[in-house]
Amino acid sequence: MAGNIFGELFRVVTFGESHGLAMGCVIDGCPAGLELSVEDITLELRRRRPGTHAASTSRSEADTPELLSGVFEGKTLGTPIAILVRNTDSHSADYESLRNVYRPGHADFGWQARFGIRDHRGGGRSSGRETLCRVAAGAVAKKILAAHGIQIQAWTSAIAGMAMPRPGDPDFDADAIEQNPLRIPGQAAAALAMQTIETIRAEGDSAGGTVSCLVQGVPAGLGDPVFGKLDARLAGAMLSIGAAKGIEFGAGFAAAALRGSKNNDTPESGTNNAGGILGGISNGQAITFTVAFKPTPSIAKPQKALNTTGETVDLCITGRHDICIVPRVVPVVEAMAALVLADAVLQNRK
Amino acid sequence: MAGNIFGELFRVVTFGESHGLAMGCVIDGCPAGLELSVEDITLELRRRRPGTHAASTSRSEADTPELLSGVFEGKTLGTPIAILVRNTDSHSADYESLRNVYRPGHADFGWQARFGIRDHRGGGRSSGRETLCRVAAGAVAKKILAAHGIQIQAWTSAIAGMAMPRPGDPDFDADAIEQNPLRIPGQAAAALAMQTIETIRAEGDSAGGTVSCLVQGVPAGLGDPVFGKLDARLAGAMLSIGAAKGIEFGAGFAAAALRGSKNNDTPESGTNNAGGILGGISNGQAITFTVAFKPTPSIAKPQKALNTTGETVDLCITGRHDICIVPRVVPVVEAMAALVLADAVLQNRK
Amino acid sequence: MAGNIFGELFRVVTFGESHGLAMGCVIDGCPAGLELSVEDITLELRRRRPGTHAASTSRSEADTPELLSGVFEGKTLGTPIAILVRNTDSHSADYESLRNVYRPGHADFGWQARFGIRDHRGGGRSSGRETLCRVAAGAVAKKILAAHGIQIQAWTSAIAGMAMPRPGDPDFDADAIEQNPLRIPGQAAAALAMQTIETIRAEGDSAGGTVSCLVQGVPAGLGDPVFGKLDARLAGAMLSIGAAKGIEFGAGFAAAALRGSKNNDTPESGTNNAGGILGGISNGQAITFTVAFKPTPSIAKPQKALNTTGETVDLCITGRHDICIVPRVVPVVEAMAALVLADAVLQNRK
Amino acid sequence: MAGNIFGELFRVVTFGESHGLAMGCVIDGCPAGLELSVEDITLELRRRRPGTHAASTSRSEADTPELLSGVFEGKTLGTPIAILVRNTDSHSADYESLRNVYRPGHADFGWQARFGIRDHRGGGRSSGRETLCRVAAGAVAKKILAAHGIQIQAWTSAIAGMAMPRPGDPDFDADAIEQNPLRIPGQAAAALAMQTIETIRAEGDSAGGTVSCLVQGVPAGLGDPVFGKLDARLAGAMLSIGAAKGIEFGAGFAAAALRGSKNNDTPESGTNNAGGILGGISNGQAITFTVAFKPTPSIAKPQKALNTTGETVDLCITGRHDICIVPRVVPVVEAMAALVLADAVLQNRK
Repeated sequence: MAGNIFGELFRVVTFGESHGLAMGCVIDGCPAGLELSVEDITLELRRRRPGTHAASTSRSEADTPELLSGVFEGKTLGTPIAILVRNTDSHSADYESLRNVYRPGHADFGWQARFGIRDHRGGGRSSGRETLCRVAAGAVAKKILAAHGIQIQAWTSAIAGMAMPRPGDPDFDADAIEQNPLRIPGQAAAALAMQTIETIRAEGDSAGGTVSCLVQGVPAGLGDPVFGKLDARLAGAMLSIGAAKGIEFGAGFAAAALRGSKNNDTPESGTNNAGGILGGISNGQAITFTVAFKPTPSIAKPQKALNTTGETVDLCITGRHDICIVPRVVPVVEAMAALVLADAVLQNRK
Repeated sequence: MAGNIFGELFRVVTFGESHGLAMGCVIDGCPAGLELSVEDITLELRRRRPGTHAASTSRSEADTPELLSGVFEGKTLGTPIAILVRNTDSHSADYESLRNVYRPGHADFGWQARFGIRDHRGGGRSSGRETLCRVAAGAVAKKILAAHGIQIQAWTSAIAGMAMPRPGDPDFDADAIEQNPLRIPGQAAAALAMQTIETIRAEGDSAGGTVSCLVQGVPAGLGDPVFGKLDARLAGAMLSIGAAKGIEFGAGFAAAALRGSKNNDTPESGTNNAGGILGGISNGQAITFTVAFKPTPSIAKPQKALNTTGETVDLCITGRHDICIVPRVVPVVEAMAALVLADAVLQNRK
Repeated sequence: MAGNIFGELFRVVTFGESHGLAMGCVIDGCPAGLELSVEDITLELRRRRPGTHAASTSRSEADTPELLSGVFEGKTLGTPIAILVRNTDSHSADYESLRNVYRPGHADFGWQARFGIRDHRGGGRSSGRETLCRVAAGAVAKKILAAHGIQIQAWTSAIAGMAMPRPGDPDFDADAIEQNPLRIPGQAAAALAMQTIETIRAEGDSAGGTVSCLVQGVPAGLGDPVFGKLDARLAGAMLSIGAAKGIEFGAGFAAAALRGSKNNDTPESGTNNAGGILGGISNGQAITFTVAFKPTPSIAKPQKALNTTGETVDLCITGRHDICIVPRVVPVVEAMAALVLADAVLQNRK
Repeated sequence: MAGNIFGELFRVVTFGESHGLAMGCVIDGCPAGLELSVEDITLELRRRRPGTHAASTSRSEADTPELLSGVFEGKTLGTPIAILVRNTDSHSADYESLRNVYRPGHADFGWQARFGIRDHRGGGRSSGRETLCRVAAGAVAKKILAAHGIQIQAWTSAIAGMAMPRPGDPDFDADAIEQNPLRIPGQAAAALAMQTIETIRAEGDSAGGTVSCLVQGVPAGLGDPVFGKLDARLAGAMLSIGAAKGIEFGAGFAAAALRGSKNNDTPESGTNNAGGILGGISNGQAITFTVAFKPTPSIAKPQKALNTTGETVDLCITGRHDICIVPRVVPVVEAMAALVLADAVLQNRK
């Protein structure tokens, strides 16, 4: 997890600025002999693209990936897999007014302090567009996991302060997730949430939410104590997503208020408070975790901001932004989980 | 963060099983010329030792560190710093009955699946005793941070389901933290909490809680996007502590329910909802985060457990255990934060 | 130095197969604020391109690099720098006859054993074409070094068994190096060597040689003991070039036969037998080393070879190959030295 | 290969200064379930200890290792293995006169430039005594290799300018290697060489030499292109040994003068000019390489040296030193080869 390189055995480097020529990733350490096509990647990228609804930005690019290397006659070679996506719909001029302003809630000020220079157009490298590369790499990782019978599913578990149906609830409907633009596991809840999102859009404001993730088919024994614990890696992976502000595994923060006799998962408790990980190693139960995402910091409402000369100025952000990025983050959470788990699977070879 | 090695430039490897000969760590990458004495380490280790109160285990060892290398005439050499602590109070025989049982809530089962072998005595390497090494290494990291004006303070912010005074509350008393055994920032709250802990002990049960951490004096510009984000690293570090089940930064999970106009920290909001980190880079405000710890899984109450032949058996755990590890985890949280920040400081050299 | 990723702070990942769609590299960890243009890279790539003379392959591609990310308004952003070069002159059909043959002296057999699959066209990833990516990355590294006053120059110091003028010899002419196709430091020696190469070509055979490298302007104090020694890293870097079979620093193998009193560089000896590195750390003298390269294994002469079913077959290699790759390796040696030194410079920041 | 940490999956960190309290290593990533005893380590350490003959230092320590962690009931746990050896015969006072002198041929000056501080006693961390830790770690790596049928043998192949019998020579006697103090593969050659060494000692001078290494039983397919090539890693490993000045694989520098038709190993050539590695991957033949070591820089003869204030002074080194370290380096070369190969074996798991 150095800079822009993620993973130990299944290593991914991503590159690209939001308004530069291209985004892309290189995967090093992917096993040889895996069937892989450009469609595998296209399918996942499509899940990350903006929708045509209230929650979504109107920036819309084809995001057609090129598979530049590492695959020969339909199979991975064991060599680096490079995937490239050109940026085609970057209205860079929209951002000229932001050249000398540090947008509240964005990386702008810290980035300037870190590097002494930044590409102000659409947040440059700190843009959510970078997650496109993660989703592309995750598509490859998912192929490895599929071969081991591991499936990852994430969904919007809360949005704009509204909690959504939870696994076990009668109205939790996993099939609904990919059938509504907010990726909510229940059509009725989704319809209600969309109304709220529309109201927030009308107000020029934005919303946050949580993404929950369920990983099934995980064998016991994944994870590498003491610092390479599976939950430690997942936490590092999830908090590396731009707007993430927290993560909890299994019962999470609620577990902190339980007694041990209540929290322990025993042969007779039927619980999975641990979220499938104990002592940093998978225990064979499903892995469950939830990630909190803050509301999109770019809002249409006027705000105060600092400019690069230290003055407080009025700021109205007029670019194209998601009212709530949570639904689009769902495939990103899945992708990052896939990267971590593919790495753990490779490390666990005997 | 591979296996038992943590960090990129300030690298720490820890070793030792709870009932083996010794615990220790080696620090590679510590800058040369830093004043360092064995007392610096002893002081921090003493903070981690069990107390003589209800919440604490009765295992008690001197935990006297030896500084084996890397220091010459009182100053660091830039060479690896090895610190060794002998195990002296390990009642290994107490654990013989656990040789063939997988304790609920513990790493036992996953560890067996991962390695095909385990040291069952006190959890072996998965014991909380391993955190001793982190505290020793953290003592060195804190010396680096002190030279940069960075201070870390953690405390018990919730215990056994009871919330404690928060910064800004009239009864929040930072000076009280190290003056009560539960490390609660307020003597009245601490007294009340101790009563609850005593009740839980009497019931043969255990409690969890949360640790909050405040890092002051952090310059803007620490952190290494996109995967080496400062919060990503802190999250990975904190979730690598055995009983941690979640982490949140700044407003955390609550931020997910806010509108953007409310969550953004602006020149006039006076807030720090971001917890001092935006886009993975410190922004010059204090860094704040909270970590959730589950209740101690070892409880005196009878439980059901699986044994190594797959049968469900009755289990009464009779060893020495903390009723609540949260107060003792406070210096561990500080230590891990110190490791992450020392690394970030070194990476930010121009 | 994991797989296809090189370096610790200045990290380079390369990708691409010889007859795939493209070659490229991503540089992570390049400092921000460095002036960098596509011309900087083009210039170095041009030095690596095949010549139009006897020693050279007739494969000829424009090798026009695209600078896809990491640079904004002419300066590096501190974000990953991706460089892409399309493959345009790959006569893949020429290689169909090699699909089931393991060419002597090539990676074919080991690669098959390692990965169970290989791209047989032009050696796939094991082709010398991969070094293009190193040269591109080296061009960036050289910009960092230039800012620190460090210059790297390599040349052909032996070819086809003929020793060339050495620094200090009256006929050593550094200016001649880039003025003759064999990169020999002396025009007369170059003319003679070219005759030999032409004879070897006529015989359907190939030649090897050595590349020597001189690094000037290196401050004392670069290198990171004990495993990150500067010479250890340079050795690892150089031996990662396909045809390299050995390396020596300073007096090298000859030093092994000297007495200590003769080999030690003292204030009065005027020698640099150490080659500028002692105990793995630069000592302020020029760094000197020589790398041995074997003759090109692809020869027109008939040879015996194993095929994939284990039979011995007759092999005549008819593709386009360099009779001697040594002159073209000169910029590759420089590039790899630049990667190592840029990394060391970054690690040595105080 | 960062600083004092070596390896990717089989990771070794070493610590200790020559005249500090102790030397040691921690091995992270050793597979679980391997039989390992302290005797396994003691045996290898004994091979590295000084002899009682002309070539050797008179410093003599028991070098009794303690196995502090990672082993339970005779088997490795998959947790870090810590090995500790106390320093017991350090005549530190002997070195007081060297506090302000930079010894020629030593790391002193560069170390001071790198760190601004150094432990002058016996070279501190730059002492050859550090290799003790490598030999201890190598003993563990050899256990892994033995389980895979891989054997490593090294020997003194040249000393003080005298070439020794080579494999295939009628007087090459592998059994003799461990039966004479110079580790020469032939008793007659060894006797002759010892006379030369005695003469050099009498003259107050020192000698260098080469160590050759033969690795048998290596399966095809080890190595990780393009930067993790097996020969690249071995070269990095060997050049990280203090006095190493060069390495060559197979025919090495001589190969650079051959024609391709002569150098290629074909089904009918019966040669192993490649030294068992092609394209960075083992090809199933024995791995062969030779490392050049310079003469011991510490000599009794008077020399000129710089002191820390920049003056040239007369220097007579009176401490205890090996006249020629080559025989004692033989187990170190084996150990480093074992570290590299154990890593490669682990990486090659399917």
